Amino acid sequence: VPAFRITVAYDGTGFVGWQRQPGGPSVQGLLEDALGELEGGPVDLTGAGRTDAGVHALGQTASFTLTKSFDTGAVQRALNARLPGTVRVVEARTAPDGFHARFDARRKAYRYQIWNGDVASPFVRRFAWHVPGPLDVASMAAGARLLEGRHDFAGFQSAGSDVATTERTIFHSDVRLAADDAFGDGVPGRLVVYDVTGDGFLRHMVRAIVGSLVDVGRGRRRPAWVSEIVGSKRRDAAGRTAPAHGLCLVRVEYAQDGAKVRMASTDGLRAGQIPVE
Amino acid sequence: VPAFRITVAYDGTGFVGWQRQPGGPSVQGLLEDALGELEGGPVDLTGAGRTDAGVHALGQTASFTLTKSFDTGAVQRALNARLPGTVRVVEARTAPDGFHARFDARRKAYRYQIWNGDVASPFVRRFAWHVPGPLDVASMAAGARLLEGRHDFAGFQSAGSDVATTERTIFHSDVRLAADDAFGDGVPGRLVVYDVTGDGFLRHMVRAIVGSLVDVGRGRRRPAWVSEIVGSKRRDAAGRTAPAHGLCLVRVEYAQDGAKVRMASTDGLRAGQIPVE
Repeated sequence: VPAFRITVAYDGTGFVGWQRQPGGPSVQGLLEDALGELEGGPVDLTGAGRTDAGVHALGQTASFTLTKSFDTGAVQRALNARLPGTVRVVEARTAPDGFHARFDARRKAYRYQIWNGDVASPFVRRFAWHVPGPLDVASMAAGARLLEGRHDFAGFQSAGSDVATTERTIFHSDVRLAADDAFGDGVPGRLVVYDVTGDGFLRHMVRAIVGSLVDVGRGRRRPAWVSEIVGSKRRDAAGRTAPAHGLCLVRVEYAQDGAKVRMASTDGLRAGQIPVE
Repeated sequence: VPAFRITVAYDGTGFVGWQRQPGGPSVQGLLEDALGELEGGPVDLTGAGRTDAGVHALGQTASFTLTKSFDTGAVQRALNARLPGTVRVVEARTAPDGFHARFDARRKAYRYQIWNGDVASPFVRRFAWHVPGPLDVASMAAGARLLEGRHDFAGFQSAGSDVATTERTIFHSDVRLAADDAFGDGVPGRLVVYDVTGDGFLRHMVRAIVGSLVDVGRGRRRPAWVSEIVGSKRRDAAGRTAPAHGLCLVRVEYAQDGAKVRMASTDGLRAGQIPVE
């Protein structure tokens, strides 16, 4: 049975999330429908992880099998021809027998974008949380770096989760100023970006971290408070959950690919684009 | 009578264009409605120029008068509070008596973005024309530069225009590679940008230029063909009109501001953002 792995980019704005569910269009649902036309029957698609409603992806991955043998380029073209422009298959490859996009994933990289300016530009609003007022990026970065390592992240997990363990390893966690005066003299402001890579993430974990880091950036909390939230293991210790639309699943890494972690470049990141690290 | 001048940024995707007209929401209409609430009666808004359906703006300008005296910051905040997030007033200032946003404009700067890659990224699709296949950027730039100077641009004007003269002066016209591999290993491709500044533009002129430059980039025409279109003064001599959604009105300059022309920076431009030159 030919197994495939695809890499998918999507603008999450109009979706109920990755996972097929009642109430609106899902990315998984659109892909399964397109695959069903290709296969001539139902196809189950397994994503590396569920992204929430409004969350974007540059490099979500998913696996599936087809009964017929298809060239990977043909699979990619056939899917893109059937999908709306908000969802693009950016790569298709064959996968080893038994490959599972979720269980075999070793690392995931997320990016969260904050637009820090008085006026929220129409061009970043789909892909960045608008936070007006002063924001101390260096303090946010100091707080972010305290999360690197193996920790129990129960303090950053939303209620309603059901996971065996709340321990996760964060390989890289940093906040940086990606663009100073990104709109020239048009829409003054700056793009502040949080990049995080880990072996897995709890429900709403990245967004709860970002909400807390913004409290640090506003001077309401010290950077060390981030470690106190981890130590407390209580979700009510953390800041608010940042909105979904600033978040993007950048990349999923597999052992068979060597699971290299490249550090994010600080050059030239711009909103509405979110380059892969 | 207090006169005001505002600078407006908008994502043109969902609009019938700048100008109020039947058939859908216009940027002018939304602004006039918001101003009407402020004034307590109808307000006429004059834009520097009409942008077509789907065309974006970073720095459209418009003028209006109010009977009451308002602080410029209050005008900006009141308008933004009433407008959807796709339209933002990025600056409000008082204007000299008799100021007219259209008649007093001295120069306009437009930018056109082309996404050159096999797959159109979901993150640039609202703000860039997707042109797959090889594109010779150096040839496009050579053709673009031939347009600088005072010329009769009738060859790049759409039918249905009614203007006194089709002569215009182009101060700056250039094509550049704004981002090479803009999406890292996510969505491979490159962003090609056309920047043009002139004392005025005919109907669909920038889009007809871009359509012709893409013919040059594809190797179907030589760069000198651009001058032949100008010489012909016949619209059917030019290439197709490029789609609206790649175009953005970047800036309008007035004599009272010194009408300085700054050259575009080649650093860090990214799609979905379109920094001001």
